[in-house]
Amino acid sequence: MTTTEKWDIFEAVFEGPSEGNPYLEIAFDAVFSHKGREIRVPGFYDGDGTYRLRFMPETEGEWRYVTRSATPALDGHEGRLTCTPPSPGNHGPVRVRDKFHFAHADGTPFLSFGTTCYAWTHQPMDEQEKTLATLSKAGFNKIRMGVFPKDYPYNTNEPLHDIYETVDGRRDFDRPNFAAFRHFETRIGQLRDMGIEADVIMFHPYDRWGYCDMSEAQDYRYVAYIAARFGAYRNLWWALANEYDFMIDTKPMERWDRFFQILEEEDPYRHLKSIHNGHADANYDHRKPWVTHTCIQNWDVKRTQDWRDTWGKPVVNDEPEYEGDIIECWGNISAQELVHRYWVTMMRGGYIGHGETYGDPDDRIWWAKGGELRGEAWKRIKWMRELLEEDVTRGLEPLAPSVQWPWHRVSGAQDGDVRYIYLGEHQPSIWALGLPKEDGDYKLDLIDTWDMTVTPLDRVPAPANHPVRHGEVVQPRAPHAAFAVELPRRTGLAIRCRRIS
Amino acid sequence: MTTTEKWDIFEAVFEGPSEGNPYLEIAFDAVFSHKGREIRVPGFYDGDGTYRLRFMPETEGEWRYVTRSATPALDGHEGRLTCTPPSPGNHGPVRVRDKFHFAHADGTPFLSFGTTCYAWTHQPMDEQEKTLATLSKAGFNKIRMGVFPKDYPYNTNEPLHDIYETVDGRRDFDRPNFAAFRHFETRIGQLRDMGIEADVIMFHPYDRWGYCDMSEAQDYRYVAYIAARFGAYRNLWWALANEYDFMIDTKPMERWDRFFQILEEEDPYRHLKSIHNGHADANYDHRKPWVTHTCIQNWDVKRTQDWRDTWGKPVVNDEPEYEGDIIECWGNISAQELVHRYWVTMMRGGYIGHGETYGDPDDRIWWAKGGELRGEAWKRIKWMRELLEEDVTRGLEPLAPSVQWPWHRVSGAQDGDVRYIYLGEHQPSIWALGLPKEDGDYKLDLIDTWDMTVTPLDRVPAPANHPVRHGEVVQPRAPHAAFAVELPRRTGLAIRCRRIS
Repeated sequence: MTTTEKWDIFEAVFEGPSEGNPYLEIAFDAVFSHKGREIRVPGFYDGDGTYRLRFMPETEGEWRYVTRSATPALDGHEGRLTCTPPSPGNHGPVRVRDKFHFAHADGTPFLSFGTTCYAWTHQPMDEQEKTLATLSKAGFNKIRMGVFPKDYPYNTNEPLHDIYETVDGRRDFDRPNFAAFRHFETRIGQLRDMGIEADVIMFHPYDRWGYCDMSEAQDYRYVAYIAARFGAYRNLWWALANEYDFMIDTKPMERWDRFFQILEEEDPYRHLKSIHNGHADANYDHRKPWVTHTCIQNWDVKRTQDWRDTWGKPVVNDEPEYEGDIIECWGNISAQELVHRYWVTMMRGGYIGHGETYGDPDDRIWWAKGGELRGEAWKRIKWMRELLEEDVTRGLEPLAPSVQWPWHRVSGAQDGDVRYIYLGEHQPSIWALGLPKEDGDYKLDLIDTWDMTVTPLDRVPAPANHPVRHGEVVQPRAPHAAFAVELPRRTGLAIRCRRIS
Repeated sequence: MTTTEKWDIFEAVFEGPSEGNPYLEIAFDAVFSHKGREIRVPGFYDGDGTYRLRFMPETEGEWRYVTRSATPALDGHEGRLTCTPPSPGNHGPVRVRDKFHFAHADGTPFLSFGTTCYAWTHQPMDEQEKTLATLSKAGFNKIRMGVFPKDYPYNTNEPLHDIYETVDGRRDFDRPNFAAFRHFETRIGQLRDMGIEADVIMFHPYDRWGYCDMSEAQDYRYVAYIAARFGAYRNLWWALANEYDFMIDTKPMERWDRFFQILEEEDPYRHLKSIHNGHADANYDHRKPWVTHTCIQNWDVKRTQDWRDTWGKPVVNDEPEYEGDIIECWGNISAQELVHRYWVTMMRGGYIGHGETYGDPDDRIWWAKGGELRGEAWKRIKWMRELLEEDVTRGLEPLAPSVQWPWHRVSGAQDGDVRYIYLGEHQPSIWALGLPKEDGDYKLDLIDTWDMTVTPLDRVPAPANHPVRHGEVVQPRAPHAAFAVELPRRTGLAIRCRRIS
């Protein structure tokens, strides 16, 4: 009997018709069943008369399936598989947990530390290998990447594959280039094996091939196709668009809604789904029920709590501006600033993405093409991830709502027995706000977010509160804090406070 | 004949009753006339039977006056003065000009570069002398200062003067300590002679003497009194409160409105008037007609254009957080950050204030007590003022509305033939956006806002725009810019572009 480990891919291959246009004309799916439970799983055409059925079992034990099709060659195939326990390192797909956070299906926390290489799978093969080598050591656990190639400043080279066939001199969006999809899913699988989530961007406006101007029917067919084809990869996230609003002239809002609905229909695993805006004031309404988390582009990271409040879902700010030096000002902030934005965002209960855009004579820029990292932020981000993963098990919750002093000015968050206060541009010589209200056994450390050091801090007495005068208007200096810590006078510092008993 | 130069103070002194409580019981004013024009000018009691009438003539030539009072000793006094041309350095009071900016009455531009020493006039005399010495070289042209002393962390010492008399062991808010007011106005005059505007704060909540809990009638009488007493100083601005909203429990909104109205009634010179909030979401409605400019406390300086749009008046952000290291996080940002906030604010068409809050064993902190500056921001702010005053004659207007790319991310402003682009945390190696759209005779300089250097920049060709693909969605890299400049890769830089023909 075939065995497939939990959250891995079971695949069955069938021979069927190759004449005509099977991509358009032939439908088939299967019903997978475990005990009394049934799951509909779409199949897909892979060219040359080959049809595939992929299934990611989420429950251990015996599964049976039977295919269904109006095409006799694809109808009524039956089979079985045994779903075995997951091997070490296989934690299953990432889901939303605790409203604003993520975890793998097995409960392993997922603190999102993403990066962006929009078109890395469309570069020459040796460049792609470099990207994989870089990712293997860079410390990111999510990557944004597009199915379609990219036409944009610094992105003028021809892609490795066309995504659709050219017939009689013109691209035919009813005829996929199956090799391109095969290549893309190979990369998804390699990322999975490295423990990296593939945040797959389905549409984007930066296009000279016509992919972003396909007809409505072609768009829907494409979405259903990649749902059937990629859905069984456990490390998949659906990113409906990069900057959807820049395509709203030809793809109206109802079409974006429908894309989400198609995913609900065709992805039996309910992978994470979101959509990313261009203009800061053009966010998709992330309250819509099919959106699992908020994906945004916004440099104004101290508004992170507002975004949590507005949409009530995990916030992933995937474009907080990139470290770099190109002329476009979404791509030229300093490494220090990007590291700062990481800390501000996460210490306000959100997640944030990395990108790197240093100009290069050969236009080899990480943000689009991958290759090699040349900046300074990624090392601090990797270190930050390791540091947080020492303690954070559920997700970081802001110490207080944004309007409450002082948590709109500085950033603080907690999870279980750990809390962090990130001071950023603030440089107090002593600090108490947000430290525990009762004495106890705490370990206090100073984190230098740039130098990547952790240094023990000693407690000192909290400064006395000033007598209250007019009503309660004199803000207490250290309300209820049991103690304070002394700090060096410099920026980019955080305080970590662990309860150890 | 008495002569008074334009915008200087004419004063007439009268003897009158000293029995009872003249502050409460005796009213007198005068009508000053020039040709057919008449101005009502309130007089005030100065203790010991002395009554004073102060007048700031705003028109050169002959003026006559006659006093009016129900008290015979103060009624019907007539006199004359000749208003002569202002002497060099006397530019008259500051007014709003061009909707969002300020200028002196003689047309001299006023770019507000303020600082804050809330209680400097209440410190020991030798400390006050130090403050004046510091101000003489610090480069600020406005200072926020309170009539009342301050009780607050780091401000626990006894003030130099009580503001009201203590009678039978309790403070009597119907009996001013005239010496305190005399002292305060002496300081206003000294600031005037140094070219510094006195932004006089009338009320604040940080109080152990009862000043902020006077009765409604006592409040109104106090406002009218200082209007009559201080109004003739040309360098006076009215700041109704520091953090008015922290007193809203006992001084409701109608009372604040009424304070403004009293100033409209009792200040014939229409000095600038505003009011300053505590909580970021508790701004007074600066659209009310008696408010001349928006005074706010807000660290979020990239919102400056929003504040201009909301209130349609000059924006003075007097508390964008202070350079310092105290535990209170409105008072512990780095010098770099404060300089950054200065540039962001002014390059978005606003004005911003300085404060310094470095902890001191003797609590001698500039922000409240004056004395000596110990930080690093003030030098850069002084240098910035000198730099801008070389070119700016009307006021800096943002290059584009805030929502327009890229001026929400970076900052740019222009005035006449000069424009500046402040890049802040951005570090492009080449820049073109906001540079002139047509070729011409321009002088380009690189400004290092921290190192205080100006270095000539050469033009380089603007990068070619990428072909437009999907609609107009590929943002032009350098729309219409005639040229670009190359920049070093570091933060805190600005570009200055002067048209020289």
